[in-house]
Amino acid sequence: MTDKIPVATTKRLPLYYRFLTELYNRGTLKISSSELADLLKIDSATIRRDFSHFGQMGRRGYGYDVKELLGFFKDILDQDVQTTVALVGVGHLGHALLNFNFHKSSNVRIGVAFDVNPSVIGTKEGEVEVFAMDNLKEQIKLHKTDVAILTVPTDAAQEITDELVEAGISGIMNFTTERLAVPNNISVQNVDLTSELQNLIYAIGHK
Amino acid sequence: MTDKIPVATTKRLPLYYRFLTELYNRGTLKISSSELADLLKIDSATIRRDFSHFGQMGRRGYGYDVKELLGFFKDILDQDVQTTVALVGVGHLGHALLNFNFHKSSNVRIGVAFDVNPSVIGTKEGEVEVFAMDNLKEQIKLHKTDVAILTVPTDAAQEITDELVEAGISGIMNFTTERLAVPNNISVQNVDLTSELQNLIYAIGHK
Repeated sequence: MTDKIPVATTKRLPLYYRFLTELYNRGTLKISSSELADLLKIDSATIRRDFSHFGQMGRRGYGYDVKELLGFFKDILDQDVQTTVALVGVGHLGHALLNFNFHKSSNVRIGVAFDVNPSVIGTKEGEVEVFAMDNLKEQIKLHKTDVAILTVPTDAAQEITDELVEAGISGIMNFTTERLAVPNNISVQNVDLTSELQNLIYAIGHK
Repeated sequence: MTDKIPVATTKRLPLYYRFLTELYNRGTLKISSSELADLLKIDSATIRRDFSHFGQMGRRGYGYDVKELLGFFKDILDQDVQTTVALVGVGHLGHALLNFNFHKSSNVRIGVAFDVNPSVIGTKEGEVEVFAMDNLKEQIKLHKTDVAILTVPTDAAQEITDELVEAGISGIMNFTTERLAVPNNISVQNVDLTSELQNLIYAIGHK
């Protein structure tokens, strides 16, 4: 079923999941698409269309069963599987991400980090040890991680990407401005903070 | 003309701009949609469609004139106007953003920062001074900034957003997980790193 879900819908899935988890924890058992629309600032027609892709129609005058929805999302997002992520590049941004509070409900955590700087190698940030790049392949196997966050200087990004692919990584969250060349079976999620900021400035200018 | 540009196209605009600037600086005067497609990992039909919205058709066997395209993008992105951004919340992430190398070509810079922590107030990160929240309104007026980056604890996000709106801010780049309530004339760009990571993990699971 999930193969037919539109990309735009899948992108909202983690958001739905997180909010419904919060509501459920607060004791909310049912919610209407219009209440959810107010909370999420997404229009209710979009929410109803999204949920229909999960086979959830909502009952008129009752709304959606929060627990039932959560069960669906949980299955889809594989939230009950703990995912350990590797971080490559412990500069300012890498350091911030090591201390970043990924939503508690998300079951995502950084489990291992790498850097080239001798003064950082061997140190620990919380529970996470920083290894030399020479240990990349071995540590990635050891931690059974298939996702890496890339926060290295742009110059080094492609070379390290090649090493990550070689080490068996399936997905890279790329904070550098380099457009990474990867084999077709590898997913890359670019997080381009300058472009995000430019888009915002552009949006303001066009309001 | 820009009013008719689809949202998906406008989102690629900063990317086009950045790459064409690099190409131009390296002496590239013309480029075909397929060459650009290889560079950007966007398919060439999409690029041709995007560029047609800017009145750029490209000539068969010649491609696009890089300088001409840059002129269009520059106008659209207002890149020649220096935009000063305020940062609210100098924790780990705020600190990283103060040291973040926003693309040199982008003309975006953080010009002023705010925090509640007495040990941070009055310090400087590079050229940027950290002020107490009491000085928000006055400093935002002084720096003529209408965009703020929000990197505060989630609990404080809405209250500080209200203060930012009151201080005359038009756009907020929101790194918190709070879905901010703002008046209609204020733009919010949410940067949800957990969701980005979950989407990537989800994408890997569905390849």
